Amino acid sequence: MSDTASAVLIRGGTVVNADREQRADVLCVDGRIQAVGADLAAPPGATVVDAGGQYVMPGGIDPHTHMQLPFMGTVTADDFYTGTAAGLAGGTTSIIDFVIPDPQQPLMDAYRMWRGWAEKAAADYSFHVAITWWDESVRADMGTLVHEEGVNSFKHFMAYKNAIMADDETLVNSFRRALELGAMPTVHAENGELVFLLQQEMKAKGITGPEGHPLSRPPAVEAEAAQRAIAIADVLNVPIYVVHVSCAESAEAIARARARGQRVYGEVLAGHLVVDDSVYRHPDFAVAAAHVMSPPFRAREHQAALWRGLQAGHLHTTATDHCTFCAAQKAAGRLDFSKIPNGTGGIEERLAVIWDEGVNTGRLTPSEFVAVTSANAARLFNIYPRKGCVVEGADADLVVWDPAGTKTLSVATQHSKGDHNIFEGRTVTGIPTHTLSGGRLVYVQGDLRAEPGQGRYVKRPPFGPVFDALSRKAALQAPTAVARSA
Amino acid sequence: MSDTASAVLIRGGTVVNADREQRADVLCVDGRIQAVGADLAAPPGATVVDAGGQYVMPGGIDPHTHMQLPFMGTVTADDFYTGTAAGLAGGTTSIIDFVIPDPQQPLMDAYRMWRGWAEKAAADYSFHVAITWWDESVRADMGTLVHEEGVNSFKHFMAYKNAIMADDETLVNSFRRALELGAMPTVHAENGELVFLLQQEMKAKGITGPEGHPLSRPPAVEAEAAQRAIAIADVLNVPIYVVHVSCAESAEAIARARARGQRVYGEVLAGHLVVDDSVYRHPDFAVAAAHVMSPPFRAREHQAALWRGLQAGHLHTTATDHCTFCAAQKAAGRLDFSKIPNGTGGIEERLAVIWDEGVNTGRLTPSEFVAVTSANAARLFNIYPRKGCVVEGADADLVVWDPAGTKTLSVATQHSKGDHNIFEGRTVTGIPTHTLSGGRLVYVQGDLRAEPGQGRYVKRPPFGPVFDALSRKAALQAPTAVARSA
Amino acid sequence: MSDTASAVLIRGGTVVNADREQRADVLCVDGRIQAVGADLAAPPGATVVDAGGQYVMPGGIDPHTHMQLPFMGTVTADDFYTGTAAGLAGGTTSIIDFVIPDPQQPLMDAYRMWRGWAEKAAADYSFHVAITWWDESVRADMGTLVHEEGVNSFKHFMAYKNAIMADDETLVNSFRRALELGAMPTVHAENGELVFLLQQEMKAKGITGPEGHPLSRPPAVEAEAAQRAIAIADVLNVPIYVVHVSCAESAEAIARARARGQRVYGEVLAGHLVVDDSVYRHPDFAVAAAHVMSPPFRAREHQAALWRGLQAGHLHTTATDHCTFCAAQKAAGRLDFSKIPNGTGGIEERLAVIWDEGVNTGRLTPSEFVAVTSANAARLFNIYPRKGCVVEGADADLVVWDPAGTKTLSVATQHSKGDHNIFEGRTVTGIPTHTLSGGRLVYVQGDLRAEPGQGRYVKRPPFGPVFDALSRKAALQAPTAVARSA
Amino acid sequence: MSDTASAVLIRGGTVVNADREQRADVLCVDGRIQAVGADLAAPPGATVVDAGGQYVMPGGIDPHTHMQLPFMGTVTADDFYTGTAAGLAGGTTSIIDFVIPDPQQPLMDAYRMWRGWAEKAAADYSFHVAITWWDESVRADMGTLVHEEGVNSFKHFMAYKNAIMADDETLVNSFRRALELGAMPTVHAENGELVFLLQQEMKAKGITGPEGHPLSRPPAVEAEAAQRAIAIADVLNVPIYVVHVSCAESAEAIARARARGQRVYGEVLAGHLVVDDSVYRHPDFAVAAAHVMSPPFRAREHQAALWRGLQAGHLHTTATDHCTFCAAQKAAGRLDFSKIPNGTGGIEERLAVIWDEGVNTGRLTPSEFVAVTSANAARLFNIYPRKGCVVEGADADLVVWDPAGTKTLSVATQHSKGDHNIFEGRTVTGIPTHTLSGGRLVYVQGDLRAEPGQGRYVKRPPFGPVFDALSRKAALQAPTAVARSA
Ligand SMILES: [Zn+2]
Ligand SMILES: [Zn+2]
Ligand SMILES: [Zn+2]
Ligand SMILES: [Zn+2]
Ligand SMILES: [Zn+2]
Ligand SMILES: [Zn+2]
Ligand SMILES: [Zn+2]
Ligand SMILES: [Zn+2]
Repeated sequence: MSDTASAVLIRGGTVVNADREQRADVLCVDGRIQAVGADLAAPPGATVVDAGGQYVMPGGIDPHTHMQLPFMGTVTADDFYTGTAAGLAGGTTSIIDFVIPDPQQPLMDAYRMWRGWAEKAAADYSFHVAITWWDESVRADMGTLVHEEGVNSFKHFMAYKNAIMADDETLVNSFRRALELGAMPTVHAENGELVFLLQQEMKAKGITGPEGHPLSRPPAVEAEAAQRAIAIADVLNVPIYVVHVSCAESAEAIARARARGQRVYGEVLAGHLVVDDSVYRHPDFAVAAAHVMSPPFRAREHQAALWRGLQAGHLHTTATDHCTFCAAQKAAGRLDFSKIPNGTGGIEERLAVIWDEGVNTGRLTPSEFVAVTSANAARLFNIYPRKGCVVEGADADLVVWDPAGTKTLSVATQHSKGDHNIFEGRTVTGIPTHTLSGGRLVYVQGDLRAEPGQGRYVKRPPFGPVFDALSRKAALQAPTAVARSA
Repeated sequence: MSDTASAVLIRGGTVVNADREQRADVLCVDGRIQAVGADLAAPPGATVVDAGGQYVMPGGIDPHTHMQLPFMGTVTADDFYTGTAAGLAGGTTSIIDFVIPDPQQPLMDAYRMWRGWAEKAAADYSFHVAITWWDESVRADMGTLVHEEGVNSFKHFMAYKNAIMADDETLVNSFRRALELGAMPTVHAENGELVFLLQQEMKAKGITGPEGHPLSRPPAVEAEAAQRAIAIADVLNVPIYVVHVSCAESAEAIARARARGQRVYGEVLAGHLVVDDSVYRHPDFAVAAAHVMSPPFRAREHQAALWRGLQAGHLHTTATDHCTFCAAQKAAGRLDFSKIPNGTGGIEERLAVIWDEGVNTGRLTPSEFVAVTSANAARLFNIYPRKGCVVEGADADLVVWDPAGTKTLSVATQHSKGDHNIFEGRTVTGIPTHTLSGGRLVYVQGDLRAEPGQGRYVKRPPFGPVFDALSRKAALQAPTAVARSA
Repeated sequence: MSDTASAVLIRGGTVVNADREQRADVLCVDGRIQAVGADLAAPPGATVVDAGGQYVMPGGIDPHTHMQLPFMGTVTADDFYTGTAAGLAGGTTSIIDFVIPDPQQPLMDAYRMWRGWAEKAAADYSFHVAITWWDESVRADMGTLVHEEGVNSFKHFMAYKNAIMADDETLVNSFRRALELGAMPTVHAENGELVFLLQQEMKAKGITGPEGHPLSRPPAVEAEAAQRAIAIADVLNVPIYVVHVSCAESAEAIARARARGQRVYGEVLAGHLVVDDSVYRHPDFAVAAAHVMSPPFRAREHQAALWRGLQAGHLHTTATDHCTFCAAQKAAGRLDFSKIPNGTGGIEERLAVIWDEGVNTGRLTPSEFVAVTSANAARLFNIYPRKGCVVEGADADLVVWDPAGTKTLSVATQHSKGDHNIFEGRTVTGIPTHTLSGGRLVYVQGDLRAEPGQGRYVKRPPFGPVFDALSRKAALQAPTAVARSA
Repeated sequence: MSDTASAVLIRGGTVVNADREQRADVLCVDGRIQAVGADLAAPPGATVVDAGGQYVMPGGIDPHTHMQLPFMGTVTADDFYTGTAAGLAGGTTSIIDFVIPDPQQPLMDAYRMWRGWAEKAAADYSFHVAITWWDESVRADMGTLVHEEGVNSFKHFMAYKNAIMADDETLVNSFRRALELGAMPTVHAENGELVFLLQQEMKAKGITGPEGHPLSRPPAVEAEAAQRAIAIADVLNVPIYVVHVSCAESAEAIARARARGQRVYGEVLAGHLVVDDSVYRHPDFAVAAAHVMSPPFRAREHQAALWRGLQAGHLHTTATDHCTFCAAQKAAGRLDFSKIPNGTGGIEERLAVIWDEGVNTGRLTPSEFVAVTSANAARLFNIYPRKGCVVEGADADLVVWDPAGTKTLSVATQHSKGDHNIFEGRTVTGIPTHTLSGGRLVYVQGDLRAEPGQGRYVKRPPFGPVFDALSRKAALQAPTAVARSA
């Protein structure tokens, strides 16, 4: 394969962006979109893709994945190559993964380790960096990451007591630092103390199976943490992004904050949109355990609330938290659900599931689909319109989408190396026929042509669109001292 | 002046669209935007505008004006020429005005009358048509207007008892018909029965001055009607657009409906964003009366709520309800506030006021400013991206905006023919330096070059972006009969 | 039976009032409670009831019944005797029924007719009077009813277009008049125009069976009307009582209004608390039709919302809307659901159902049970503590309640003359063992001793507890004129 | 004065309880209410109080005071004698004060110390005990306090980092223990980490005066903690009582939780109801510092929200947080607002201020006044109807209230030993004329007859009214294990 992809002309489709649909051809040259317009001519040697009757959309951005995540001496089934390749097969052309330092581990050390692992990626990638502890070196390394490494978001785990949980002191310090740097704080919102107590209580009651997992992480545990993170961000005048919002209560907390004028953003996982918590009571441990992730799948009414949030615009992005532990790994928690490694897959299925349950049902327009699967993530993490938009000059990361195509999702046919598919047996209408990554046709009607190392690290500049507005607001509201005689 | 405007190259500015800002030149040829990009070359004979340090934005769309409105044998001070010209001076390049048939008047008659009046417009224009009564001819004329005349929105007055008030029966029938036609119903939301009773009560208490106007139209009167219209739209599965949302309660009703997944949209007037209800207690009748419009200006906390709504995205557009009755006309209500003709101006000042109080304060980013002053209106009324977007192929309706320029707003310097300025004395930072309408430089640093008749009627196609989604939803939820044996 | 009941001593029970529980005996003499206290001595000849292990509570008040309701030349199965007798068998000792004048019928005529019908009642009764039309005679008769007849509440039907529907003009006038008289306006909240349209549409789609009933009266139709009535009451500074709140949206509207400081009250029917809308799709027409009432039974999540409202205190009373049309009468709508006479029973079962699903589940404490089954109704309709409280001096209307007793509810064993039981087959724990009405033991462990004519008409004085507060508030907020020179 | 008070007959007044008003005399004998009824005869030797034209109400209960609070080697100006005496002068006859152990101090030691200090109290008293740290001894001592000492509530400070702040681990453990014991957890809700950071930031900006106090404790800081405590209580199925709710956001959090069916209660301070945050910008340090308490006084709109909460019933009690540090003590923070000892007075003024601003304005009925000043506190802390109700058998703690009496509140005339009055200069209408404590006339028209040691310690039994309901709910929702083969 050459270093330079040949030109590709996508002809006859309906281009969908977050703001509109238009009939247009799309010409990709040298990894970028060179033109979007009617009746474009194919350059010599160009590959022509017939998109008649199809939609041409920005490739999906999955802003929440964990490829090659180390855990207890082993790692998830998907590494950066297989994971991103599975994404390409499903129309997702970029991921934002996570660097997760151990407490006391220098951030830069962890960052370099993850960068090394990611070199084999088949699609473009970037990293959120987790703040799992606090001291002056962490403050300094946050600066280095922003200024030199193109990191513009930091993650905070409010759960996982005695491990990577960030307490309020860390949250407060890190959020303040993020604001200074023009970076977005993000949170995994679950109250770690409550989870810890409830885990002990479930086990004390003899509930040791996977059904103990959701019982120890009810919606109120998530909503509490979401509200706390939002309140801290509000007080400190920082934007805030809540990852994997799974329940109505969290979505409502975000909506309330936004209605007060706060810059709050919410991410939803494809799984949380369509899978419910009955899975944890499956009689087969392996099936139940395969669904163990945090926050857990929820009762049905929460799914409706998440869809409403996406439609109304108080939830913004969709992701997968793709993190594929296999049955043998999950078995570590056979006698104690709290030891089941958390994680499920989905990077390949996300777009199709959201189209099928979102667009086909009238919950989302095609433009809204693009917004929640790519454009919004690109905007929030400040790589728009390089990513997330079909526009001249953007990276040629595209998906050609057949709204009439159907497929039955299954572990048997998936490209991920995980051994379970949380959407198993679901037949979707609306599937990708072609994926372009950096101008290359990497997926063509079932033929996956991903290659290790073709993904590039994407630097994300700080000070995204809302920081200037936040600083104007802060300046106007700056506190003043009262002059008093001595 | 020639029929064809010469080319204009706007050089060196920052182009702002609803989705992003970019440094780019903009080339306008033959009334359209021919290119947006770096270092564009000026064609021979082109006028070059230096936009260094300035923003280049889509010209404002004012989706709510009443030019040349007939009233008691007289008409408002601004006709379609002077009103649109004033708009151009302030950066607004399109209006959507209203055709308001009398009860029993055939819709087509009224429509043709208004079209005639509008021929002198200096800027592009379109019409919402009011449904003030109901019978089969109205149903039929709605179809004609949509299919042949490019009308895609119908207005309903829920106030003005014994005049143009639409009762629930009319609302229900008209909304249903609008859905069928792919048109957007809009409402002036005030409960006419309550207004009527409160007007009588105020007068019975001896309150006959303009202070009786807000006392007879409290926020709850507006919120009731907004909720009613939203509920009817919800039940009938129709989108709904609430004009001139003036109070927190209405904004909250819209936010609640949206959070439930309903397609509801809200418009805010520039005046309601910055003027409060203390004006009605001004000791000078003329001053107080000059502010009589409906809904009235509100107590200060409502203004904050409206700004929050625009920022959070549950309010969508900004307008003026430009309707300039002069002091002599207002004097008709000297002894009875309910006889003061309702209306105020603002088409020229809208953009500057919203920039100054919105962008300069950090409430809105420049992109959000574009969204609420033009792009959202264009999308909702289905003329996007022809209007509301700086993009190749769009109409060359543009404003070049100097964020450092300042101006003190005043009736003394305004272009509107009205004799009052509700923003009198307010000094704003952020003003237009150039306005292009259809590719012509119609406003250049204080020099207004508007000409009668250069505005075009804009046909708006039906079935805007959400109708397909609504119909998918309706299909899935279609009621079914239970089969029972006889 | 003598005119004077002998004394009754209820010994050894736990007396439950809305504010507390206490171990106490209750002595009833001459129709009143003479003493509540420890170790009371039985007067000579007194009947002693052993209430050991049982609760002694105020007899239930059902503030919403329709006994002997005339309809199309026939009447409901229960007249004032059989209906009130059924109530006594279930522990309910008072009803507030409705006088419903036809449009144009003088209120006093209708009132006298209903008073005549009610003379045979076995338990105490009172009347709300419906305002179904408006003119000066209605205004005058409202005064007569309040001043001379002890009526302190007026009902308004917002549904039933072309029949008894009150339009906004009537609502506004009647609410204003009610405030003046110190009477409580109440509303049946459903938007009649929407119901009418939806009924036509369902029939046009071929949905003619009882399943069309809920489809033409969705929750949004109710919520709209509730919000409208609340808004009108808010603007006019009148208290407002919403009858048969059946859905989450209405309950939330009430909660929101209360949170704003408005005096709004909500009533819930026992049926709406436990029966869901699946009944309308029953394959047997008779079964489905037997459940036709308005508002209809709702999807399950609404039941949870109603219980939460009772617990949180934004819903206040429970009732039945007891209105027993039989299968032959329901058959009038065999070919058109809109012709099925609306109504279901429940007066006998209400207390047991609410205890079983409310107290046994921990949703309500016993004191909260008393509040929602009697005390709150007595307070709101200003007959407290004569009714609704076990206190010296009160009417001896009592129920002795066995929390361990069980019963399976059924049409086969009910005392109502209706031919259907919406709680059929439900086994409840918690049942009455004795009922006292006016000091008489009218129900003793299955033995119903109700007698026609022993019920008394209860006059309810105007100006209940909140009117003085409302008038203080109004005085402080009284609008004032601005003095202006001529 | 003898050990036994003589009988007192209060004649001719209107007795007000939380459920109703009635014209009745009240006879007090041997410290208890012996009768409430019409035309009671005075026993020989009885003192007769003429209550004509007056209200007779339960004496106020102040559930939040800090008498004789030790601080930096000194103590508040009011000890248990002077503080309770001031209360009696204002109609308050019971307090619930706080035992606040130092971290690591055994609870029982602290408890005994406070009991000793309180022996001089002139009015009845009880204690909440604070949980400021956690280990097994704390768990055990909580049991001793509940089982042997009549403590049924435990307090948690979520602020005051590096001092008495309870972290989430302590909250979770203590709430769980409280549930087991049938005791009510209560919280001072402010996020201590945010307060700490903001204090440093204000000082870093040179804001060292009292104006820095509210700037470092904005409403969002309080709302966060309130939501967190409510969420923890929700998850653990414990009731929760939030002390000194000062802002709209906290009140709304409580309202939302209650609307979900949670048993949450809120307390409001008289000061927060009527004093706003402008006091902190007073040019005189002493005046500004005199108002330093936590949470701070708030902007005006919050006061309206608190009143609405009391009226709607989602806020329940009123208190003072009476804690009188004097100017010399406040001066410790002259150079650093964070060193100003927190606290203000008000025990004497509470009832009059709430009557004047609550009842006279129509926000509260007299019965609602009784509910929020005494009955609700008595119910929540399970001493009802011994306290909080004018009923036969209750303690004869009463206030005779003249609704027409007026008084100008001032430090010059107050009985508290504090040197500042936050209600200074406010003229109220509605004042006590007589106070009875344990049947003794301790305040008679300006003559305060309080005597040290006449107050009694009030034991409060555990398992108040809602615990049984909570346990039924928990039983129904008990989690269960899934049976799986090995
Ligand atoms: Zn996570
Ligand atoms: Zn994750
Ligand atoms: Zn209007
Ligand atoms: Zn208008
Ligand atoms: Zn009804
Ligand atoms: Zn009814
Ligand atoms: Zn405190
Ligand atoms: Zn305190």
